[in-house]
Amino acid sequence: MHILLSVLDIVGTFVFAISGAMAGVYKRLDMFGIAVLAFATGTVGGIFRDLLIGAAPPLAISDPRYVATTIVASILVFYGHRFFERIERPVAIFDAAGLSMFAVTGSVRALDFGVPPVMAVLLGMLTGIGGGMVRDILLARVPAVLQQVEIYAVAALAGAGLAVLGVELSWPFVPTALAAAGLCFFIRFMALRRGWRLPGPRLDK
Amino acid sequence: MHILLSVLDIVGTFVFAISGAMAGVYKRLDMFGIAVLAFATGTVGGIFRDLLIGAAPPLAISDPRYVATTIVASILVFYGHRFFERIERPVAIFDAAGLSMFAVTGSVRALDFGVPPVMAVLLGMLTGIGGGMVRDILLARVPAVLQQVEIYAVAALAGAGLAVLGVELSWPFVPTALAAAGLCFFIRFMALRRGWRLPGPRLDK
Amino acid sequence: MHILLSVLDIVGTFVFAISGAMAGVYKRLDMFGIAVLAFATGTVGGIFRDLLIGAAPPLAISDPRYVATTIVASILVFYGHRFFERIERPVAIFDAAGLSMFAVTGSVRALDFGVPPVMAVLLGMLTGIGGGMVRDILLARVPAVLQQVEIYAVAALAGAGLAVLGVELSWPFVPTALAAAGLCFFIRFMALRRGWRLPGPRLDK
Repeated sequence: MHILLSVLDIVGTFVFAISGAMAGVYKRLDMFGIAVLAFATGTVGGIFRDLLIGAAPPLAISDPRYVATTIVASILVFYGHRFFERIERPVAIFDAAGLSMFAVTGSVRALDFGVPPVMAVLLGMLTGIGGGMVRDILLARVPAVLQQVEIYAVAALAGAGLAVLGVELSWPFVPTALAAAGLCFFIRFMALRRGWRLPGPRLDK
Repeated sequence: MHILLSVLDIVGTFVFAISGAMAGVYKRLDMFGIAVLAFATGTVGGIFRDLLIGAAPPLAISDPRYVATTIVASILVFYGHRFFERIERPVAIFDAAGLSMFAVTGSVRALDFGVPPVMAVLLGMLTGIGGGMVRDILLARVPAVLQQVEIYAVAALAGAGLAVLGVELSWPFVPTALAAAGLCFFIRFMALRRGWRLPGPRLDK
Repeated sequence: MHILLSVLDIVGTFVFAISGAMAGVYKRLDMFGIAVLAFATGTVGGIFRDLLIGAAPPLAISDPRYVATTIVASILVFYGHRFFERIERPVAIFDAAGLSMFAVTGSVRALDFGVPPVMAVLLGMLTGIGGGMVRDILLARVPAVLQQVEIYAVAALAGAGLAVLGVELSWPFVPTALAAAGLCFFIRFMALRRGWRLPGPRLDK
C-alpha cells in the first residue's frame, strides 16, 4: 500500500514537473527559472496538503527523491522541449494521469493524519490542482484551473471522493486506489474529448 | 467566550466568501472557480494565521463548517449575484463587519497560542486582510488592501490592538471583544463615509 | 554561533525590507502598503523555510525584532526614498549581502531541524530568494529571480552549499559561515560586474 502510494506520487510529480518546465520554456526563462517552475508545479500541491494537515516537514522536503525527480524533468525539457511540444496531446493525457494519482495519494494521506473525510476529499483535490495554480501565479496569470474550459478539478474531486469512501468503508486498498485514480482519469479524459464543462453564472450583458 | 469567537468567525467567513464569490462572477469564472474564490477569501486569512502560530491543522481544515459556509455562500451568489450587485453599498458594510470579526478572533487565537502581544495584533490584522489578498492574487492583480483608497487594514489593526490589550489586562472578555470589533467597524465605516486615507510618500514627478 | 546567525539574519532582513519598501514607493502605494512589502520582502523567505522545516511559529513571528526591523526600514524609505534612489548601485550591493546572509542562516537552520543536507542547501536558497518572489507576486508581476538577467539564485545555492558542507564536515563554524557568505557575495558581485548569466533553452523562432 505504501509502495503503491509512493510510486503514484513520484510519477505524478514527474508528469507535473514536465508541464511546469514546459511553461517555463514558453515564457523563455533560463535554466534556473525552468527548474523552479518544474519543482513548484510538481510538488507544491503536496506541500500545501502537508502543511495543512500538520505533516511538517512535507514529504517533498524530507525526501530528496522529489526534488531529484523534478530536476530530471527540467533537464529533459531543457534539452528536449521540441519533443514535448510535438506530443502536446499525449502531455494532456499525462497531466490527467498526474491529477488522478495526486487526487488519490493526497486524500489518503490526509485521512491518515486524521482530517475529517469531507476535508480529505478537498485536500486530495488540492494536491492535484495546487501545483498548477502556483505555476500560474508565478507566471502572473489567473490559474488555468479557475478558468477551466473542460472539467478538471471536478474529476479530481470524484477520484478523491471514491478513494476516501473506500478507505472509510475498509474496502481492499489497492483495487480501491486504482479504481479511484481510474475514475478521475476517465472523467478528465472524456471532458477533453467531448468538451464537458461546468456552467457559469447567468450574466446578461 | 469560545462560542462568541466561533460565531464571529463563521459569520466573518460567510461575509468574506460572498465577496470572493462575487469577484469570481465578475471575472466570469464557472461554478468551481467561484467556489474556490469564496473558500479562499473566506478562510485563507485564518489559515495563514493558524500556520504561522503552529496550529496545524488550521481550523478551516479540521472543522468542516467553514467549507460548508463557503459553499452556501457560493451557491447564493451563483444564483443570486444580481441581488448582491444591487446591494453593493450594504456589501461594503458587511465586509467591514467581517474584517472586524476576524481582527478580534484572529488576535485572540494568536495570543492563546503564546505569540507575543505585538505579533498577535499583526496576526489579527492578517486574519482580516489575508483572504482578500489571496483572492486578488488568484485574479492576478495587486491586492486591493495594498492600494487602499480608504483606510482598511489600519481599522483591523486598531480592533486587534484593543482586543489584545483587553486580554492582556484581563478585562471581561465579551464586552472587550465586542468593543474591539466595534472600534474596527467604526473606523472602517467612517473611512468609507468621509474618505479617510493614509498618506503616501512624497513624489515629485 | 547563534549570535552570529542572529546578527546576519537581522541585517539581511533590514536590507531586503529596504528593497521591498522601495518597490512599494515606485508602485505609489501608501504607508501601509509600503510597510507590508517591506515585511514580506524581509521575512517571507525565512517564514517559508520555517514552515517547511516544521519550525512553527516561524522566527519572524515569535521574535518581534524582525517586524521592528522592517518597520524601521519602511519609515526610512517613506521619508528618505530619494536618498535610496540615488544610491541604487550600492543597494544592489546591499541586496547581494542580504542574499549571502540568508543563504547561510537559512541552510544552517534547516540542518539544525534535521532536514537532509541536499534539501538544506535548497532551503538556504529559498530563504534568500523567497522574500523577493513574494514581493513580486504581491505586485502582480513574474518574480525577477525567475527572469534573472545576471546570476542570482545560483550564488545563493553556492553559498548555502558551502555552509552545509562545512557543518556536515564539522569545520569550525564562524570561518565557515563567513566564507560561505563571502562565496555567495563574490559570485553575485562578479555576475553584476561582468554580466554573468545562465543559459536558456535553445528556441528557434
